[in-house]
Amino acid sequence: MGQAPTHLVAVYPGSFDPITNGHLDLIERASGFVSRLVVGVLRNESKQPLFTVEERADMMRQAVAKYSNVEVDSFDGLLVEYAAAKNASLIVRGIRAVSDYEYELQMALMNRKLRPDIETVFMMASEAHSFVSSRLVKEVIKLGGDIGGLVPPFVEQRLKDRLFAHRAWKG
Amino acid sequence: MGQAPTHLVAVYPGSFDPITNGHLDLIERASGFVSRLVVGVLRNESKQPLFTVEERADMMRQAVAKYSNVEVDSFDGLLVEYAAAKNASLIVRGIRAVSDYEYELQMALMNRKLRPDIETVFMMASEAHSFVSSRLVKEVIKLGGDIGGLVPPFVEQRLKDRLFAHRAWKG
Amino acid sequence: MGQAPTHLVAVYPGSFDPITNGHLDLIERASGFVSRLVVGVLRNESKQPLFTVEERADMMRQAVAKYSNVEVDSFDGLLVEYAAAKNASLIVRGIRAVSDYEYELQMALMNRKLRPDIETVFMMASEAHSFVSSRLVKEVIKLGGDIGGLVPPFVEQRLKDRLFAHRAWKG
Amino acid sequence: MGQAPTHLVAVYPGSFDPITNGHLDLIERASGFVSRLVVGVLRNESKQPLFTVEERADMMRQAVAKYSNVEVDSFDGLLVEYAAAKNASLIVRGIRAVSDYEYELQMALMNRKLRPDIETVFMMASEAHSFVSSRLVKEVIKLGGDIGGLVPPFVEQRLKDRLFAHRAWKG
Amino acid sequence: MGQAPTHLVAVYPGSFDPITNGHLDLIERASGFVSRLVVGVLRNESKQPLFTVEERADMMRQAVAKYSNVEVDSFDGLLVEYAAAKNASLIVRGIRAVSDYEYELQMALMNRKLRPDIETVFMMASEAHSFVSSRLVKEVIKLGGDIGGLVPPFVEQRLKDRLFAHRAWKG
Amino acid sequence: MGQAPTHLVAVYPGSFDPITNGHLDLIERASGFVSRLVVGVLRNESKQPLFTVEERADMMRQAVAKYSNVEVDSFDGLLVEYAAAKNASLIVRGIRAVSDYEYELQMALMNRKLRPDIETVFMMASEAHSFVSSRLVKEVIKLGGDIGGLVPPFVEQRLKDRLFAHRAWKG
Repeated sequence: MGQAPTHLVAVYPGSFDPITNGHLDLIERASGFVSRLVVGVLRNESKQPLFTVEERADMMRQAVAKYSNVEVDSFDGLLVEYAAAKNASLIVRGIRAVSDYEYELQMALMNRKLRPDIETVFMMASEAHSFVSSRLVKEVIKLGGDIGGLVPPFVEQRLKDRLFAHRAWKG
Repeated sequence: MGQAPTHLVAVYPGSFDPITNGHLDLIERASGFVSRLVVGVLRNESKQPLFTVEERADMMRQAVAKYSNVEVDSFDGLLVEYAAAKNASLIVRGIRAVSDYEYELQMALMNRKLRPDIETVFMMASEAHSFVSSRLVKEVIKLGGDIGGLVPPFVEQRLKDRLFAHRAWKG
Repeated sequence: MGQAPTHLVAVYPGSFDPITNGHLDLIERASGFVSRLVVGVLRNESKQPLFTVEERADMMRQAVAKYSNVEVDSFDGLLVEYAAAKNASLIVRGIRAVSDYEYELQMALMNRKLRPDIETVFMMASEAHSFVSSRLVKEVIKLGGDIGGLVPPFVEQRLKDRLFAHRAWKG
Repeated sequence: MGQAPTHLVAVYPGSFDPITNGHLDLIERASGFVSRLVVGVLRNESKQPLFTVEERADMMRQAVAKYSNVEVDSFDGLLVEYAAAKNASLIVRGIRAVSDYEYELQMALMNRKLRPDIETVFMMASEAHSFVSSRLVKEVIKLGGDIGGLVPPFVEQRLKDRLFAHRAWKG
Repeated sequence: MGQAPTHLVAVYPGSFDPITNGHLDLIERASGFVSRLVVGVLRNESKQPLFTVEERADMMRQAVAKYSNVEVDSFDGLLVEYAAAKNASLIVRGIRAVSDYEYELQMALMNRKLRPDIETVFMMASEAHSFVSSRLVKEVIKLGGDIGGLVPPFVEQRLKDRLFAHRAWKG
Repeated sequence: MGQAPTHLVAVYPGSFDPITNGHLDLIERASGFVSRLVVGVLRNESKQPLFTVEERADMMRQAVAKYSNVEVDSFDGLLVEYAAAKNASLIVRGIRAVSDYEYELQMALMNRKLRPDIETVFMMASEAHSFVSSRLVKEVIKLGGDIGGLVPPFVEQRLKDRLFAHRAWKG
C-alpha cells in the first residue's frame, strides 16, 4: 500500500464569474505543491453567469499564464468524473466562512461516496481576501463602487465593458 | 513560476493520545496523494498526556507499518519550523466540526505568516469517524464503555493496560 | 401539573422530494419512542417539487409500510395548526448541519409562540446520512451519478423514470 | 416493528450547579410529553462543583416538586447505561448556542454507538433563557450582580449562603 | 489624532418589509447613544418587496415618530456612499444568528475597503426578538398565524390589508 | 424620548496580556466615533496573566498615547458597573470568529439584563488581524517564532524580557 504518486494532478473547480484575487492567490499557492493544477471552469448555465464559460476560461487563461503547471479547462457534469477524466487524484477547494465550510463538507462527503479514489482538500482564503467573492464584486461594481485590488485590472475592465458598455450610446 | 515538485512531502501533526480510527483513515487517504507523509507526534507535555511521546510514536508506527510512504516522528517547537526541517511543503490537518475549523483557520493563518512557503490543507473526517476524538475515547473507556471500532484493537488493549492495570492487584 | 400522556403523537413534517435513507432512519428511530408518528408531507407548491404531493405521500407510504405506528398524510398551512389537528403534542425535526440548526431554531421559537402547547424536538442525522439531502440526491442523479444507498431502490427508480423517461423515445 | 411504547421514560442529565430557570423551563416542557422524566444529577467530582451532588439533587427535588411525573436522581458513569438502568428510551438535552450543539451532536453519536436503543432528542432553550448558564450565573453573583429572574429565589439564597456566608464573621 | 466628534450620526439601513418589533427595539437602543440616527430604507426593487419603498418609509416614520433624534429616509446605491452623504460616521446593523453574522462581516469588510472612514457596529437582537424576521412574519401571517407582539399593531393591519384585501370582494 | 447625547463615552474592556495590533486597530477606529474611549484593563488574577494589571495598563498607555480622547484604566468586578461608574453608555467589543461571537452574545444579553441603560456594540477585527490573539502571540514567541507585525515593537521587547530574561545568566 501507499505507493508514492510521481505526478500529482489536482482540479480546482469554480464558476469564476468573474475571477477574483482570492481565486488567484489560491491558484498560486496550490500550484506550488501539486505537479499540475487544472482550473476547471464550470459551465453552470442555470445560474445565468455574467460571462459565458468560454469568456470565463479565456480570462482565467490570461490570469494564470505565468504559471507553467496550471492549465485551464471547462466542464459540466459530475465534478468527480471530470477529475477522474483529467487523471486528478485531488480536488482543491477554497473556503472563507463557516457557512461555506458546511456546504463544502456535504459536497466532499458526497464526492467521496461517488469516487473514493479522489480526495478533496480545503485551503483557506488569505485574510486579505476573506471578504471577496465574485457575487460581492459584481454587486459593488454595479453600484459604482471601486473594486481595485479585488480583481486583476483587466478583469475590472471586462466587468465595466460588460455592465456599462450599453451606456455609451445612451450618453 | 510554478515549478512542479517532483517529491511532495507533507506533515500530519497531532498529539495522538491515543490514535483513533479517524486518524488512521486520514493517514491512509493523505498517503495516497503525497510522496511521503511524516506523522509528527507532538510532545505536548503541558497537556499531561496519558501516554509519553515515545509510547505514542511507537503505537503510531505499529498502526501505519503497512504504508510504505508514511514515516512517524516526534517534535516540539513551532510546527512550521518542524515541517521545514522535514522538507515538507504541506501540512495536513483533519477537521470534524465548525469549532475545529475556526481554530484551525486561525492557526493556519498564523503559520502562513511565519512561513509563507508552507501550505496548510484541510481534510474532513469521514462521516463514520466524525464523532470520534481522542478525548471522547478516553472518557468512554474510563467509564467502562465499549470503544471497539473507534481505535485499533491493540490501542484498545494499551488503553486498558494503562487505565486499569493497577486494578489487577486490587482485585 | 405534569399529567403523564398515555398516548404520545408526533408529527414529522417535510417535503420529501424525494425520500432519502436519512429520512427513513429518523422515522424508524422516532417511531420507537412515540405512540404514533404522523409523517406530514408538505404540499409546498411554491418550491416546484419534482413529485406532486400525492406522489410523495404514496412513496412515503410504501417506504414506511412496515412500521405499524407510522401514518402518512399531507398538509399545507401552519405546521403547528396541522399538528394540533392531529392531536400531536410533539414536532420532530432532523438536523444535519449548523446552518440547518439555526433556521430550525428560529422556526421552533416561532412555533412555540404560535402554539405553546406543542413542543419541537430535534434529532440529529446518523453520521452515515449526514451528507444526504433531497436536493443533493436530485443534483447527483441528474448528472448521472450513482445514488445507490442514499435512497430506497424503488425511489431511485421513480427518480430515473421522472427525470429520464422522456429520453427513451428521444433515443 | 414499531410497537408503540405505552410508557415513555426520559432522562434529563446535567450538573445543575446550580439549577437555572432555563433548566426548569425545559423540565416543564419535557414533562409534558413523556410519561416519566428522570432528572439525573451528574456527580462530576472532577469539575469541583460549588454544591455536592446531594445538595444539587435536593435543590432540584424542591424545584420540581410540583411535577408529579418528574423524579430526581443522581448518577455517575456512562449516561446511556444509567438511562438503560432507568428503563428510559430517551435522553433529553437542552441546547442554546451553535457551539453547544456541536458538542452535543458528538456526544449523541457516541451514545448511539454505545446503545443504539436509546435515542437523544434536543430541545432548544426558550429565548428568554438563551443567555443563562450555570457558569454565568455563578460569575455574576460572585461579582455582586443581580441574578433575580435567572434562578429560583431559594436557589439564589443558597448561592449567597454558600458564596458569602464566610463574610458574616469577617464583617 | 482622535478628535472627539461633537455630533455622532449613524445610519441604520434595511428593507423593513415590514418593520418588526425587533427593528424598533434596535432603533430605540441605538438612538440612545448617537446624536442622530438615520433609518435608511433600501429601495431594493429586485427583491419584489410587499410594500413600496415609500410605503415602507411612511410606516417607519409612523413607528419612530416618538424619537426626536431619529429620521427616516430611503436610498439605493452603495450604503457607504449614502452614509457619507448623510454625514454619518457609523453604520448600525442588527444580528440575530451566526449565519447573519458571517454575511454581515463580509459586507462590513467590503464597506471598510470602500470607505475606511465609516465604521460598522453590530448590535445583537434582544432575546425576545431573536426569532423574528420580516420574512418569517410574512410567512406566518399568510398562513393565518397570529403575529401579535411581533410587529406594531398598525403594521399588522397594513399587512392584512395588503395580503387579504382582495379576499373581501371574493367573499 | 431620544435625547441626543452630547458626550458619548465608551468602555473597551479586555485583559490585554499583551496588547496586539488587533486591539490597537480597534481602539483607533472606536476612538474615531466616540467622544471618549476608556480602555478598561481587567485585573483577572484567576487567569494568571503574564503581566500584572499595572504593567498591562502601562503598556496600553504607551501604545495609545497619541489618541487624545483615549484613557486607560483598570478594573475588576462587573463590567457594567464599571462602565456606569465611568459614565459610559456604550461597551465596545471586538469579535474575530463565530465562536467569539456566541460567547460575546451571551455576555451582552446578561449585561443588558444587569444594566439595560448600557449598550454593547461589536466591531469586527480587520481582516489583517483576524488571526491574531494574545494567547496565540504568546504561544508563538515562546516557541521562538517571529511576532513582528502582530504587536507593537516595544511590546515584543517586553514579551522577550519577561519570557527569556532568565536565560541570560543561564547562557
